[in-house]
Amino acid sequence: MAGIPKGWEMIRVTVVYEAGLLRAALEELLRCGGDFDVSSASHWPQRPIPGASVPDVYVVDAECLEPARAADRTATGRGALVALVPAQRPGVLRRAHQAGALGFVDKDGSKSRLLTAVRRAAKGDRFVDEALAAGFLAAAEMPLTQRELSVLALAAKGEPIADVAASLHLSEGTVRNYMASVIRKVGARNRVDAIRIAQGAGWT
Amino acid sequence: MAGIPKGWEMIRVTVVYEAGLLRAALEELLRCGGDFDVSSASHWPQRPIPGASVPDVYVVDAECLEPARAADRTATGRGALVALVPAQRPGVLRRAHQAGALGFVDKDGSKSRLLTAVRRAAKGDRFVDEALAAGFLAAAEMPLTQRELSVLALAAKGEPIADVAASLHLSEGTVRNYMASVIRKVGARNRVDAIRIAQGAGWT
Repeated sequence: MAGIPKGWEMIRVTVVYEAGLLRAALEELLRCGGDFDVSSASHWPQRPIPGASVPDVYVVDAECLEPARAADRTATGRGALVALVPAQRPGVLRRAHQAGALGFVDKDGSKSRLLTAVRRAAKGDRFVDEALAAGFLAAAEMPLTQRELSVLALAAKGEPIADVAASLHLSEGTVRNYMASVIRKVGARNRVDAIRIAQGAGWT
Repeated sequence: MAGIPKGWEMIRVTVVYEAGLLRAALEELLRCGGDFDVSSASHWPQRPIPGASVPDVYVVDAECLEPARAADRTATGRGALVALVPAQRPGVLRRAHQAGALGFVDKDGSKSRLLTAVRRAAKGDRFVDEALAAGFLAAAEMPLTQRELSVLALAAKGEPIADVAASLHLSEGTVRNYMASVIRKVGARNRVDAIRIAQGAGWT
């Protein structure tokens, strides 16, 4: 059964990281550090691919994960997910959680935590880096609604208010109200400040 | 002499990368890949530290380099600098160049290029990843003046126009003129768009 390696088998791990050099470096770290069968890929399959061969564990840069759609929130048929998450970015942690991650490893942490997380995930067990605990609290308290996030994400791309309104089938006044609400909720001084704060936290 | 290892000596390499796990992974990559004596540090000394022991080569994440001040643009007494640079970010390439880098390695490239760059830098020789060539052209054609960059950097932090003006000892009208000029030069639709484009290129 995928995800539960037999006693004598090596754990098959696939590293997913956008930048090739860092992908190679993480592969080397896993190869030197444990009895893993390591490969790499440029992206993590958001949906199960029928009939595709899957590793026991994916080690994925959480900053590359797309905000999950509810339909994708299942790990069935895809191998266990260990997410590498930067501290202080609760939105990224939230995306990893929504993607169904079993392991949450601090990007600023040690090699041994990653190895532990991979071994646990291969057995179907959870691992949460203690350095990320505060981030989980912040992620649970995400202040913005889905609609506010949509408005903010388009505004952050430099779309004028009229275009944001057209994209979301809203009036310009409604879009302005959402932006005002976002600015207030995140404690920003203006629109640019709100975008900066939301991007820093990884909400968009 | 630092920077030119004697024939029988191992090249001493120090890896500088903000996220600890990736720092460890890059250390492992260098250790497994060559006959290097590898260590790591959390930051690259922007100025020479008198009397401090320096490695032959620093391998540094260029995204962590501060925009250089002219006084700091010398590599004397600091070991050679090999910068890891993402493609499509000419501003980051420019910072690496200003910091006096001898090697420029594509972050999305292969392990062998990094090893080549380190060996060359240890001998005082230049290495430029061909994937970054177009970036050098873009970096040379950076459209913004130092004053425009200063205005943009403060605006990107969410500072209101009045605060930007006070910080730079300018009138609010002058700051507005600079912002209008930035928006026009980078081909943006508005202020948020200009900040997005400049940050994407790594200019600020």
